[in-house]
Amino acid sequence: MSKQAKTAISPTREENYPEWYQQVVRAAELAENSDVRGCMVIKPWGYALWENIRTGLDGYFKATGHVNAYFPLFIPLSYLEKEAEHVEGFAKECAVVTHHRLEAGPDGKLVPAGELEEPLVVRPTSETIIGATYAKWVQSYRDLPILINQWANVVRWEMRTRLFLRTTEFLWQEGHTVHETKEEAWEETVKMLNVYKQFAEEYMAMPVLIGEKTAGERFPGAVNTLCIEALMQDCKALQAGTSHFLGQNFAKASGIKFQSREGREETAWTTSWGVSTRLIGGMIMTHGDDDGMIMPPRLAPSHVVVLPIIRNDTDKEKIMQYCNETAVLLRAQSYAGRPVEVVVDDRDINAGEKGWQWVKKGIPLRVEIGPRDMENGGVYVARRDKGAKEKYGQSRAEFVSTIAEVLGDMQKNLFDRACAFRAENTRMIDSWDEFVTFFKEGRGGFALAHWDGTEETEQKINDELSVTIRCIPFDYEQSGSGKCVVSGRPSKGRVVFAKSY
Amino acid sequence: MSKQAKTAISPTREENYPEWYQQVVRAAELAENSDVRGCMVIKPWGYALWENIRTGLDGYFKATGHVNAYFPLFIPLSYLEKEAEHVEGFAKECAVVTHHRLEAGPDGKLVPAGELEEPLVVRPTSETIIGATYAKWVQSYRDLPILINQWANVVRWEMRTRLFLRTTEFLWQEGHTVHETKEEAWEETVKMLNVYKQFAEEYMAMPVLIGEKTAGERFPGAVNTLCIEALMQDCKALQAGTSHFLGQNFAKASGIKFQSREGREETAWTTSWGVSTRLIGGMIMTHGDDDGMIMPPRLAPSHVVVLPIIRNDTDKEKIMQYCNETAVLLRAQSYAGRPVEVVVDDRDINAGEKGWQWVKKGIPLRVEIGPRDMENGGVYVARRDKGAKEKYGQSRAEFVSTIAEVLGDMQKNLFDRACAFRAENTRMIDSWDEFVTFFKEGRGGFALAHWDGTEETEQKINDELSVTIRCIPFDYEQSGSGKCVVSGRPSKGRVVFAKSY
Repeated sequence: MSKQAKTAISPTREENYPEWYQQVVRAAELAENSDVRGCMVIKPWGYALWENIRTGLDGYFKATGHVNAYFPLFIPLSYLEKEAEHVEGFAKECAVVTHHRLEAGPDGKLVPAGELEEPLVVRPTSETIIGATYAKWVQSYRDLPILINQWANVVRWEMRTRLFLRTTEFLWQEGHTVHETKEEAWEETVKMLNVYKQFAEEYMAMPVLIGEKTAGERFPGAVNTLCIEALMQDCKALQAGTSHFLGQNFAKASGIKFQSREGREETAWTTSWGVSTRLIGGMIMTHGDDDGMIMPPRLAPSHVVVLPIIRNDTDKEKIMQYCNETAVLLRAQSYAGRPVEVVVDDRDINAGEKGWQWVKKGIPLRVEIGPRDMENGGVYVARRDKGAKEKYGQSRAEFVSTIAEVLGDMQKNLFDRACAFRAENTRMIDSWDEFVTFFKEGRGGFALAHWDGTEETEQKINDELSVTIRCIPFDYEQSGSGKCVVSGRPSKGRVVFAKSY
Repeated sequence: MSKQAKTAISPTREENYPEWYQQVVRAAELAENSDVRGCMVIKPWGYALWENIRTGLDGYFKATGHVNAYFPLFIPLSYLEKEAEHVEGFAKECAVVTHHRLEAGPDGKLVPAGELEEPLVVRPTSETIIGATYAKWVQSYRDLPILINQWANVVRWEMRTRLFLRTTEFLWQEGHTVHETKEEAWEETVKMLNVYKQFAEEYMAMPVLIGEKTAGERFPGAVNTLCIEALMQDCKALQAGTSHFLGQNFAKASGIKFQSREGREETAWTTSWGVSTRLIGGMIMTHGDDDGMIMPPRLAPSHVVVLPIIRNDTDKEKIMQYCNETAVLLRAQSYAGRPVEVVVDDRDINAGEKGWQWVKKGIPLRVEIGPRDMENGGVYVARRDKGAKEKYGQSRAEFVSTIAEVLGDMQKNLFDRACAFRAENTRMIDSWDEFVTFFKEGRGGFALAHWDGTEETEQKINDELSVTIRCIPFDYEQSGSGKCVVSGRPSKGRVVFAKSY
């Protein structure tokens, strides 16, 4: 048996994980690099996945009282400068618009012309430009809360990019809310973190830890940053979403003030929260195997591909009719609130190759239909969460009537698998030796260890092992007090360490 | 009666149409100008309208075999230059990114740094950047057609901007397709024009004329530009959507070649087509009245607002319960494929003012519920397409059971009204005197007149009257031959003249 037949993706995860990742993105036709430095082209299969992510999240946002709006792509430089830490955090990675037209230069080639009085930054995030608008909208406590989300593209000039995980331009949503009190703003910050957790687990089948970031890992300008952290199959953590409690920092910078119930002028409290196309990278690295992508059914662009197996022309018409009928029957079913989505792939190419293309794309179910299946009123089914060779025959009627159940079972199976993987690769660690061994000789993973709370210790661990504190769990004191794994100083509870993307 | 009570918008359409437009956009809370030159903030009510437009159009695109994808925001300058007419058309209005970070200048203020080797243009449209990708994707006739659409933001540095109608940044969709043959590409161009027409008429209730643009009005680089043209209430035309037959111009510029069925290398044929947030401007100017916006029910963000009329605290709880029940009953109904969307506005503000806010926002139905209505099991209804004072009582049961019918009737009424307006303001004109009178002394409108087919005549009419040829109807020869209204030279048929946005 040739190597090609055994594995669709080369190299395997074991051989070279980062390269495996790139090859999965390519083979699944999710995205590719464009000729523009660090910017990707999101291909139809990848974009359909993003549309489903958007629809799912948007449902949660609306259910929690948020509405969508749209704010400008450009931020005047002076706005970005209003919050000192914020601009400091983004200054090194800003795309700057300096001119507003092109004209022929001395050699006849076009050059930028019409220099702007004030340069415009392409939004890396929108706190400052949205804040300027909110300052105009908010007069009284009656105008609060403002609960707005924006779906948009943003640009951060990253030096090293990787498809979905870190790109110069990416798609995301950014929620920006304004509140009367500190308590309400904090409640919102936590609420949206929990929305992210729920979405990650219920839609993406990707278990996440939640907690606070350390001071050094906070969003520039935030008082507190909360995050969801997932464990990838190479045992590195992925920060998959963040929710920021901004205190009054940005409200002060933008002048968001209101007349309180007591008639006093007060400064508002704000939050912001976002997830991006990075989530797609997280799904690939959580579920993908050596055969390619595996789509969790709740987000899969299509649930089923029907593959006609045609051996001669006389069968063709009948088989195609049976396949199309099967698609119609399936589409009348629904799973998790949307109709079952079916592709009938009747392209005239090699059947084996065609099947493998769908394996790599990660479609949940492949249904092969040949003359014998047709005669028996049957179908031949392969589940993407099982081995590529594991197929079973079934009557069509039964397959159709149990489709939602099967997809639900796959969704659960993927989540359970990911939870088991995380459990296997999470360790309570109490000595520096063990800590070093875990990350240097072992595969790494989530290390739950005591930390003395100092930046110095955090930095030392990062310098020596490239390991960071992923989060301080909300309930970290419940893990019991102990001694810092580095300094031996007292610690109130365990925090989560890992290497990360 | 105060003036305020008679009209919600000041000035009226009659008094000052452009200013009326701005005031409607403001009062309906659709959008506002941002501090960034020419860029708008699309407010939640306006964005929800755009979301409905997007959903509606996306359905048509998918039904005609298209899929969505996403391409980079930035276009290398050299790509834009590949098509000479194209770059010529957009050079004067390009936002140009020249630097990729900010650093402290001599006086400590941040200045652009990290100059790019090649400037990047923020996409004004994506033919060239998408073409570069397609050139890689297309090898053989088997890879064709490519039928992709993108929902995106684009930037054109316009000198005079107006909310929705002409803004520096706007939201749009752009379809980009590649075909094997000229015939197929032309068929696609026409098909998508008809999709736009159907959407404009069935969703927006805005009748449109269709036809070809003259050479001078074509998209830069296109062989032919088709358009939909609507007539606004000030008798000016609005170009609401365009579909371009690009021939082989862009395929040559980007190198989109394929091996044909006969094994020869051939250059592909491409099309592009787009509509934008400008459609919202078209809806305002087609349906709006002196009381504000009127939302066609098929696109309205919400269909019904329930307004509790509470005169004292003892009634409050009961009335609120009755109102909420009414909302639940309505939401169980559906209209045009989506559930009826209902807002219960229980804000503690003046009831008259509250009602006017919803009139201005253009919500199709306002339902007032006071103690007496409640006791009678009734509701008190106002339709936005009727006068603001025209209200009727009805049993709640009847109102709920006929809601889809009423909304459908409103949708039809708005379309019929707009068609009647267009008919009243469309004139066959056969002499220059009459032509001048129509546009100079009269209100103008669509003039169907003979044209000799020369650019010279077209220019003369534009210079003298600021009137342009909006389109050459596909069937223009059926209107019969005649003599050019300016030169007296022979003409094969009538073309459509108007002043325009």
